[in-house]
Amino acid sequence: MSLAPWRSPLAGALHRNDSQPHCRYLQLATVRADGRPANRTVVFRGFLPDTNQLKFVIDSRSQKPEQIDHQPWGEACWYFTNTREQFRLAGRLTLVQQEHPNPALQQARQTTWKDLSDAARVQFAWPAPRETRADAVAFSPPPPDSAQPLANFCLLLLEPVQVDHLELRGEPQNRWLYSLDSQTWTTQAVNP
Amino acid sequence: MSLAPWRSPLAGALHRNDSQPHCRYLQLATVRADGRPANRTVVFRGFLPDTNQLKFVIDSRSQKPEQIDHQPWGEACWYFTNTREQFRLAGRLTLVQQEHPNPALQQARQTTWKDLSDAARVQFAWPAPRETRADAVAFSPPPPDSAQPLANFCLLLLEPVQVDHLELRGEPQNRWLYSLDSQTWTTQAVNP
Repeated sequence: MSLAPWRSPLAGALHRNDSQPHCRYLQLATVRADGRPANRTVVFRGFLPDTNQLKFVIDSRSQKPEQIDHQPWGEACWYFTNTREQFRLAGRLTLVQQEHPNPALQQARQTTWKDLSDAARVQFAWPAPRETRADAVAFSPPPPDSAQPLANFCLLLLEPVQVDHLELRGEPQNRWLYSLDSQTWTTQAVNP
Repeated sequence: MSLAPWRSPLAGALHRNDSQPHCRYLQLATVRADGRPANRTVVFRGFLPDTNQLKFVIDSRSQKPEQIDHQPWGEACWYFTNTREQFRLAGRLTLVQQEHPNPALQQARQTTWKDLSDAARVQFAWPAPRETRADAVAFSPPPPDSAQPLANFCLLLLEPVQVDHLELRGEPQNRWLYSLDSQTWTTQAVNP
């Protein structure tokens, strides 16, 4: 696979904003079963090797799996506060749960689990999200095995087919649309 | 109207993050006519007086009006980088275009236009967004009349019925769900 043309400006943005830990936080929109949108902050976990797919990790007990099952399309909005630029990345979502049949994706799920910090891993051993607040002791479980993902740990992939890059600092501003069509990316300079 | 119970923590977050201009930037998700989500950064313009409705400004030439017409429901995700807390605000969207019949909302549209900076107002006189990049001269139009909104200027309102507040800095983390039911707000402490 070849690197999509938006990868270079995105890598540049990550580099120029990396003094800020929140530069890896972005907002992922999905659609609920009732047709209404959902939106939450997720952490960028790098790209799936040899692809243009962004990696995230999610808990199967959250609301996302049902939403993705209903509508496997997502749009991420990534605003970089230091350089004042925004990437909107729209594409198909792939949820890699424990029972996913693809061995390569299972392997990626394992590797991603291993690469998490202890603090990130232990959250998957916490009580179920959105349920009535549990006692404090429930949030101090033994640390999970770093080699074996917990059953509720999922890898989530976003494969963009359209990327909208806006630079607020341009003169006046700069904006580019990247579109994937018949496996070819086109790039267009558009009005902000 | 009474202040919703999430207004106080949100005001606190705005206050504690106000050294950063981007503390007023949040991500608004809507749904496209094809059922896929859309997501972009918008600027919080305060609350409509005597309501719990958040104000934004948008351009009628953008994709939002068609999306809101199709699905008048939105979810905003607001992450505060300094205090490390997130508000997700889900609710009905009201678009106040030039021809909106409600006089009070028309008045609010006018006031919001007047309150914009010159730099924000002039963007509504720029060439249409997302079209092929226009010549530089098109981005230096005469400044619009600050008393009379341009026809493509819209006020957008979000009236939350559910608010999900997550504090990453808690021990371990804190999360509250605020829900509006039969005109009464309930507050629940839930697992992060």
